Amino acid sequence: MEQRNIHPTTRIPVRSESEQIRDQIIQFFLQANGGFVSTRDLSVRLGISRTAVWKHIQLLESIGFSFTVQPRLGHRLEIVPNIILLPLLERHLSATCQLGREVKWLSEVDSTNAVATRLAALGAPHGTVVVAARQTAGRGRRGRTWFSPVGGLWVSVLLRRPIPLQHAAELTLLSSFAMRRALMAETNLHIDVKWPNDLLYNGKKVCGILAEIRSEGESLATAVLGMGVNTNLLATDFPTDLLKNAATLSTARNQPVSHQKVLAQVLSQLDPWVEQLSTGQSVFPQIAKEWRQSCITLGQSVRVNTPAGLVTGQAIAVDDGGILYVRTQSGLMQKIHTGDVLFEEGQE
Amino acid sequence: MEQRNIHPTTRIPVRSESEQIRDQIIQFFLQANGGFVSTRDLSVRLGISRTAVWKHIQLLESIGFSFTVQPRLGHRLEIVPNIILLPLLERHLSATCQLGREVKWLSEVDSTNAVATRLAALGAPHGTVVVAARQTAGRGRRGRTWFSPVGGLWVSVLLRRPIPLQHAAELTLLSSFAMRRALMAETNLHIDVKWPNDLLYNGKKVCGILAEIRSEGESLATAVLGMGVNTNLLATDFPTDLLKNAATLSTARNQPVSHQKVLAQVLSQLDPWVEQLSTGQSVFPQIAKEWRQSCITLGQSVRVNTPAGLVTGQAIAVDDGGILYVRTQSGLMQKIHTGDVLFEEGQE
Repeated sequence: MEQRNIHPTTRIPVRSESEQIRDQIIQFFLQANGGFVSTRDLSVRLGISRTAVWKHIQLLESIGFSFTVQPRLGHRLEIVPNIILLPLLERHLSATCQLGREVKWLSEVDSTNAVATRLAALGAPHGTVVVAARQTAGRGRRGRTWFSPVGGLWVSVLLRRPIPLQHAAELTLLSSFAMRRALMAETNLHIDVKWPNDLLYNGKKVCGILAEIRSEGESLATAVLGMGVNTNLLATDFPTDLLKNAATLSTARNQPVSHQKVLAQVLSQLDPWVEQLSTGQSVFPQIAKEWRQSCITLGQSVRVNTPAGLVTGQAIAVDDGGILYVRTQSGLMQKIHTGDVLFEEGQE
Repeated sequence: MEQRNIHPTTRIPVRSESEQIRDQIIQFFLQANGGFVSTRDLSVRLGISRTAVWKHIQLLESIGFSFTVQPRLGHRLEIVPNIILLPLLERHLSATCQLGREVKWLSEVDSTNAVATRLAALGAPHGTVVVAARQTAGRGRRGRTWFSPVGGLWVSVLLRRPIPLQHAAELTLLSSFAMRRALMAETNLHIDVKWPNDLLYNGKKVCGILAEIRSEGESLATAVLGMGVNTNLLATDFPTDLLKNAATLSTARNQPVSHQKVLAQVLSQLDPWVEQLSTGQSVFPQIAKEWRQSCITLGQSVRVNTPAGLVTGQAIAVDDGGILYVRTQSGLMQKIHTGDVLFEEGQE
């Protein structure tokens, strides 16, 4: 019989105290807007010793920040690295965006989805972002690993919203769609959607999405949206067996992609959709037209690896629930909720 | 970029070696069909010492089994306790049922859902049942605890089937519906459904369901169906604040409820439904008529606590997706995916 008590939820800070001070220091430099900031000033404003300030600046240098030092004047920020830290991301977020207001950055990690799941269990807030320079065991769909060397954008977003299970599958479609818009805006490249959620450039994969969901009852407790983007990788970063199906955006565009801008756009776009889903309303129908236009799967002869087996036929439609309809050679129309559309013999 | 490797899955046995031997001994006694079984015979057939056999029989006695001992003849099984162990459950399962073919019984546990989730992470097979004589931190919906003293049926079932997220909410409805049928068959009492998944006797709660789901992509990785039934409890087992909304079946019926028969019926009923959901097909429509007839919520003035706030109005319908439609006083029709229908001021 149910009782009123609520499970105690542990709340640990997502960033350590030292990481919070690091982010405050970055914030001060950004506010100085290219001007000098004195060590004494930082020391007073943060309530830490000048030695501690120096150590933090060395740490910042070790992760790619660069400063000019002038005696008496202090430090001036010259180079901001292309990594996701809270103050670097926040400046690009829309004002109302609730996602991305807490950021855990890691230089190396097993899987950002795994870290986000662990942080979720410890009470991390809605919208927490986990990002890593590289993943050693990045997670792909159906138990596959995701190749994630330094240079790509490997990120997971934690959601804590009571989204009905019936609409939860939209999260994957919406995430890849928001990513498509953000990448096209940032790179001016044309990017296609491959049902259900891959993004392709020139027929080769540039982004994959893995949503991991935990629910109690009929609505979500937490969702972790994992996104992997081949942004600033080189062809030589890839093992040859992956290369034939993979593209990288920096190569296609001949200049690097800003991780901060892309992620901020994705989050700012997703945020109102997540809120709408939380009120029990579907979102996909309102973007379905643009989604279908960008989907290269429709109209094609396809082979789809589904949990129930291989389905071969013509991809006819994707309905407002995101379900793929394939007409098989026998003329039967098959509804496919999930699966991998194969590029060619045995590949996806 | 995705790679072919599959995560290694640890497979540990759900039952310890000693628990497997215990279950084999029970099986031999059941096969003896009221006849004597000699210690020597058991020792030879199990490949363990006669001392070990004696120790196992003592263990069985400690959990409620009772034997007659006759020199030279051996033991005869006299009393089988009302607990869920594999051989006791299996004899009541339908021949094709894939659920309940692995059973972890525990005398005391924090939460059977928590244990099932841990076993799932360790690779426990589809259909694994976790059952406990009592739970110290049984889980209710929305972070509430579930009062679970000795005498009730506290059980969780692990599913590993790629059920599409869009249909996953049916698992809760189907579980409570299967439980209603099983309890009515076993007790001859009339039991009502309160949307979405509570079972009531005489307007008081006798069963609750908590489905905890984990998904990757658009379909389930695992589901843990937790079911709590006030079977053989006495009114005096309940704290007074729970008593006004709780009923117990043994009191209503004046004789105890067989946990083995009830659970076996629930599993045998659920099994084909789970398989149907796994192929991407909805199940609820085919039971919706009987479900609606048994649902006391429909037609009532209700107050529903939803994630989006309190909804007050007339419960008009439950659609084929299990969604409740409430007409509010302003005449607006509200779709409710999840919520608690309140019995009266502030209670559920």
